[in-house]
Amino acid sequence: MADLSRRRLLTGAGIAVGAGAAAVAGAALVNQDRPHPRAEPVLAAASGGVIPFHGAHQAGIATPVQDRLHFAAFDLSTDSPEKVAAMLKAWTAAAVQMTSAQEVGRGATGAALAPPDDTGEAIGLPASRLTLTVGFGPSFFDRLKLPRPAGFEELPRFRGDRLDPARSGGDVCVQACADDPQVAVHAVRNLVRIGFGTASVRWSQLGFGKTSSTTPEAQTPRNLMGFKDGTNNIAATDRKKLDDHVWVGDEGPQWLRGGSYLVARRIRMHIETWDRTSLKEQEDIFGRTKREGAPYGGTREHDPVAVEKLPADSHVRLAHPDSLGGVTILRRGYSFTDGTDGLGRLDAGLFFLAYQRDLNKGFIPIQRALAAKDLLNEYIQHVGSGVYACPGGVASGSYWGEALLNQA
Amino acid sequence: MADLSRRRLLTGAGIAVGAGAAAVAGAALVNQDRPHPRAEPVLAAASGGVIPFHGAHQAGIATPVQDRLHFAAFDLSTDSPEKVAAMLKAWTAAAVQMTSAQEVGRGATGAALAPPDDTGEAIGLPASRLTLTVGFGPSFFDRLKLPRPAGFEELPRFRGDRLDPARSGGDVCVQACADDPQVAVHAVRNLVRIGFGTASVRWSQLGFGKTSSTTPEAQTPRNLMGFKDGTNNIAATDRKKLDDHVWVGDEGPQWLRGGSYLVARRIRMHIETWDRTSLKEQEDIFGRTKREGAPYGGTREHDPVAVEKLPADSHVRLAHPDSLGGVTILRRGYSFTDGTDGLGRLDAGLFFLAYQRDLNKGFIPIQRALAAKDLLNEYIQHVGSGVYACPGGVASGSYWGEALLNQA
Ligand code: HEM
Ligand code: HEM
Repeated sequence: MADLSRRRLLTGAGIAVGAGAAAVAGAALVNQDRPHPRAEPVLAAASGGVIPFHGAHQAGIATPVQDRLHFAAFDLSTDSPEKVAAMLKAWTAAAVQMTSAQEVGRGATGAALAPPDDTGEAIGLPASRLTLTVGFGPSFFDRLKLPRPAGFEELPRFRGDRLDPARSGGDVCVQACADDPQVAVHAVRNLVRIGFGTASVRWSQLGFGKTSSTTPEAQTPRNLMGFKDGTNNIAATDRKKLDDHVWVGDEGPQWLRGGSYLVARRIRMHIETWDRTSLKEQEDIFGRTKREGAPYGGTREHDPVAVEKLPADSHVRLAHPDSLGGVTILRRGYSFTDGTDGLGRLDAGLFFLAYQRDLNKGFIPIQRALAAKDLLNEYIQHVGSGVYACPGGVASGSYWGEALLNQA
Repeated sequence: MADLSRRRLLTGAGIAVGAGAAAVAGAALVNQDRPHPRAEPVLAAASGGVIPFHGAHQAGIATPVQDRLHFAAFDLSTDSPEKVAAMLKAWTAAAVQMTSAQEVGRGATGAALAPPDDTGEAIGLPASRLTLTVGFGPSFFDRLKLPRPAGFEELPRFRGDRLDPARSGGDVCVQACADDPQVAVHAVRNLVRIGFGTASVRWSQLGFGKTSSTTPEAQTPRNLMGFKDGTNNIAATDRKKLDDHVWVGDEGPQWLRGGSYLVARRIRMHIETWDRTSLKEQEDIFGRTKREGAPYGGTREHDPVAVEKLPADSHVRLAHPDSLGGVTILRRGYSFTDGTDGLGRLDAGLFFLAYQRDLNKGFIPIQRALAAKDLLNEYIQHVGSGVYACPGGVASGSYWGEALLNQA
């Protein structure tokens, strides 16, 4: 059973099986042995835990949020677009295999004296809805002397930012999401291995639990402040909102159409202080109740937000489209806990990920409003940051960034 | 549905429900909404995802290994056994509630101006087989002027150790294991909150995937080196081996009988180097094949190990009971990935956890043998360490360490 799920596709050692067969094997595993926690049952059953890699958009953006995340930002160690293109080609081939629960294979090397093509820790595990999403930071374009999309630059400094350069930036990012952390970690680690010599990891972040739902019908996950997060988010099925607010359209360069801009922020929570704050104060800060998640003025989680009924500087009031002329983003964040900070406090918080069509009609104005006066600021601090342009979907036979790199 | 699973047991705000009802609600959630990944289906169905907290032994030792870990080591901020007893009493009450998917409640405080009794991020989640296991480090006894168990002291220094004091030691440890990381993190975080003023976190570690099976019938998990780990381990059902090698017997003080000694080691893997090592070399290092996990000289994973057929300094040969006069431990480790190390390498490895009746017939002789010449040493480094005496099971109405603290 186990050996059916991640066969070698291309190496001499394994038997070549089509994606179809692998998907079926994956489905059987998913249904019988290792069902997804919190996954939407319908989706899981229909797809066998395999999210197609190819398509009009990169997977991992409008895809219903998986449970776990491994995010990595890489720095290039070369100025050669050809070398980078070769890496992205190899990454794409590996991604196609890993997202369909096959082992990574570089071809029929076979020899026992060569390092294994795949690091192996995901052998026998189903695809677990793995998605791999790639983006390019502003420095990527400068380094490779490629034209940046108009207006695409490092984020401005926001009030209260305390960014650690060792957890910020990066020429290339990879967002790996899956319902099994071993599968997400395995994927990033194999890309690191394949990229050796061309790119190295600048920073990485493990997210242990999703904090933003993009599936309104499922139970909304809670963040580490105990509040439901993602109630008012763009739904994965809301084509109109996705087109209006997430996917780059004709205004962008060819390679970016159908793609999106990604903002990543590592937001530390002062959870010990938060835990000593009264329930009423906590609820006033968001303008929503804790247990139900209902907006002030309403009684149920999905009742509409009437901003004027929320406390003046509450998070939801400030961030709501009605306060910002319709500005909207797709949130896809994860909770993190990275041990302690040396002062007896847990280093925990929200690894915030947001996708948008236009940074100036997305993260930037929202964060400006929040940084200025959000009541939540007393309990959080932004300590890491990255911004990336994520190309449109990869067609079968193409590779990540091909249309962009062809301009070099 | 969600509100059924973690009702407040004791607060004025909630409706008091018995553990039975909560367990039933938990079972429904487990079966319909969020089934366990990798969990043993029979167990999960029978228990509703609830592992009983009370019993002859602490849960979390012989319990079939859950998928995720949050481990925390605390330092006491007091020398008063009374204050510590009060904390352990409150911890126990919270543990009873959390392991049965109830919210933590301190009583009918009710007032909206008090901080919530429970931090809330696990509301609506099933128990997820949460176990909480407590141990006391050598410094605990010294600090509280309590008699240490005979021979219980800090571990000796082993060759190659490069221990970071900020990731080692601690007066008290808590091992939280669950099939959902949010549930494990929530549990530790609430104990931190309750312990405020009496103990603070010295270090903590998130484990994202189990690496040791204690259920031979289930698929053996793989560690980050891609090898099956836990093949030759003490099975959770092997009463004789547990009695002989894990549970402290009459040789120990009263409070420790039915308990065990825990060794925790944070072992960093140089995975980039490992990933460039040939398959043959990798297999020679363990003396087992990678794909199947079969010992050299055998063909299937569970074929018996004949040590003389394994390479001289291979890991399994050195660690096998036949090489060490029958020495055996119960391994219960987890993989970790904690971002990068500032040198472009993933800070990843094995958070090794082992339980034993006698450290001198367990971890110490095995690690001495391994430290001296294990081929694996080229690829790993021990960077954190702790040793703890874990009391026997908690009877209903009692609390963690009661019999020990009564001696103060
Ligand atoms: C640790 C930091 C943060 C926490 C704990 C947090 C938490 C929350 C919560 C609980 C909600 C209400 C539920 C929902 O509709 O999703 C919410 C809404 C929202 N947040 Fe945050 N958030 C954080 C940071 C941010 C940041 C940095 C941004 C963007 C700059 C942001 C943008 C939004 C938006 C747009 C909404 C929806 C408002 C609405 O349309 O009703 N949040 N957040
Ligand atoms: C990163 C460090 C380590 C890795 C990757 C590792 C990996 C493995 C693997 C793959 C096996 C074979 C499968 C099995 O029977 O479980 C094994 C066996 C074993 N390991 Fe380790 N191990 C590590 C550290 C340790 C340490 C520190 C100890 C104890 C001091 C230890 C004790 C054992 C024992 C007792 C066995 C079973 C041997 C037998 O009875 O056949 N290991 N280990």
